[in-house]
Amino acid sequence: MNLPQQVRLVEVGPRDGLQNEKQLVPADTKVELIRRLAAAGLKTIEATSFVSPKWVPQMGDNTEVLIRVLGGEAPAGLDYPVLTPNLKGFEAALAAGAKEVAVFGAASESFSQKNINCSIAESLERFRPVTEAARAAGARVRGYVSCVAGCPYEGPVAPEKVADVAETLLAMGCYEISLGDTIGTGNPVSISRMLEAVLRRVPAEKLAGHYHDTYGMAAANVYASLQMGVAVFDASVGGLGGCPYAAGASGNVATEDLVWLLHGLGLETGIDLDALVDVAAWISAELGREPASRVARAVLAKRAKACG
Amino acid sequence: MNLPQQVRLVEVGPRDGLQNEKQLVPADTKVELIRRLAAAGLKTIEATSFVSPKWVPQMGDNTEVLIRVLGGEAPAGLDYPVLTPNLKGFEAALAAGAKEVAVFGAASESFSQKNINCSIAESLERFRPVTEAARAAGARVRGYVSCVAGCPYEGPVAPEKVADVAETLLAMGCYEISLGDTIGTGNPVSISRMLEAVLRRVPAEKLAGHYHDTYGMAAANVYASLQMGVAVFDASVGGLGGCPYAAGASGNVATEDLVWLLHGLGLETGIDLDALVDVAAWISAELGREPASRVARAVLAKRAKACG
Repeated sequence: MNLPQQVRLVEVGPRDGLQNEKQLVPADTKVELIRRLAAAGLKTIEATSFVSPKWVPQMGDNTEVLIRVLGGEAPAGLDYPVLTPNLKGFEAALAAGAKEVAVFGAASESFSQKNINCSIAESLERFRPVTEAARAAGARVRGYVSCVAGCPYEGPVAPEKVADVAETLLAMGCYEISLGDTIGTGNPVSISRMLEAVLRRVPAEKLAGHYHDTYGMAAANVYASLQMGVAVFDASVGGLGGCPYAAGASGNVATEDLVWLLHGLGLETGIDLDALVDVAAWISAELGREPASRVARAVLAKRAKACG
Repeated sequence: MNLPQQVRLVEVGPRDGLQNEKQLVPADTKVELIRRLAAAGLKTIEATSFVSPKWVPQMGDNTEVLIRVLGGEAPAGLDYPVLTPNLKGFEAALAAGAKEVAVFGAASESFSQKNINCSIAESLERFRPVTEAARAAGARVRGYVSCVAGCPYEGPVAPEKVADVAETLLAMGCYEISLGDTIGTGNPVSISRMLEAVLRRVPAEKLAGHYHDTYGMAAANVYASLQMGVAVFDASVGGLGGCPYAAGASGNVATEDLVWLLHGLGLETGIDLDALVDVAAWISAELGREPASRVARAVLAKRAKACG
């Protein structure tokens, strides 16, 4: 089997995770979370989102968090991207010192309309001034595509739709396109077919897999993606965030679950699994619950019993 | 991709699952569980274990459960295998009407010693009179091999060790060999390597995968096994049983998780997923908890919200 030897994980817990938690998490806790993730070996940590606090109150402290992270409370030399859905958000992010931003498109028309209130084509046009301003400011842009396998309103999404959006984001200058299975209905076969279509237009080294674990398929989907040359994956420590489309269900795959898989496959991530499980246990306790991920639960149970 | 078109699931919840639950479940509930699983489309349901109630009090009602299941409280024409670790257990199972039994060996010496207090070779010799008596009585015998990827005492287990035990069980007359990743440390690559070794000596149509989800790898391991031609998998509704080697961790993969994967891959199982999720919710409520599986949680959350 021909798998990539090195895999980079993009930690999205502080943004994509905490954004979908009901409770407001203090800025102190967010900064400490980012600091601990960096100490565990994560090299790319999505720090916050520059959206309106009217829509996403959980990210209302975006400027404070980013300034503190970049100001030395988290290690220097790592990437701390932030989500910027429009030019206003980009300018605020830039003012706070952002070196990397992310834009968020969809492969499903219904999802685009319901989520950001415009068509896919309109959303892409909205990103263009962001990517142009980023280039002028020397900031990198990452592109997200959501609903790459299924849509909560439309059901299955055609692979060519995903390829269209991914190719457009690449042409706009995104250095990486993160393919999101937003509702977790993808399986190794449908994800492989989607990747086949995308790979005809975007090279593997520009792609990341962002797979939700709603139906327990994330590890299998990562394995299928590795077999097709994808070597970057998004994940959320402790599975932070859950599923915004079905309360009680799982959402983002837990970072520790992917690290366990990747290390088991003999691939390098630069991440210390035990330290990462500590972070999962700590942030879960801050949120008043047990870690949701299978690996965190198994590792913590083993430590308690010193067996297995 | 060349996957088997039809997959048979062997439901082990009433035995392997309930055996590892702390609380004693009444025989009425066990029989009702088996009846509901059959109604959801399961064709092979491991009903109980003929072990000493001193060692496994949860299965102390084995004779009553099997007589009621075979006596018409569960549908006729399905397979209801029972575990029989020795000749005494086999004779009790036969007296209760068993048409199919299972023996349980290990691929790890330490595990065999600690679990059944004898060497692998001794355990296999102990099974021989069972398989001979079964043949004389016209009963089928299924063989389990535990620790096919890792052992709680030894760590990784050599694929050739697994192949040795599987081949011996086949030669003794077992019609199917179930390969158990007892502690769930297998990943798609280590499971594939293990299967490669076993397939050199046992044909794929004689093999079943029995993968634990302790580290969330079961779906990925089933996918890897399908790619190698294995078309039978063991699972436990609602993930019943947990992990006997690490309290709080996951054990048997949930049947509904595998059905969701297999149907998503376009493969046939003959199982009604919605009915199966109902069974998972019902038995979990009987045990006083929420269903542990991702699919049960996602399907129930979707029903509650009617979205996604």
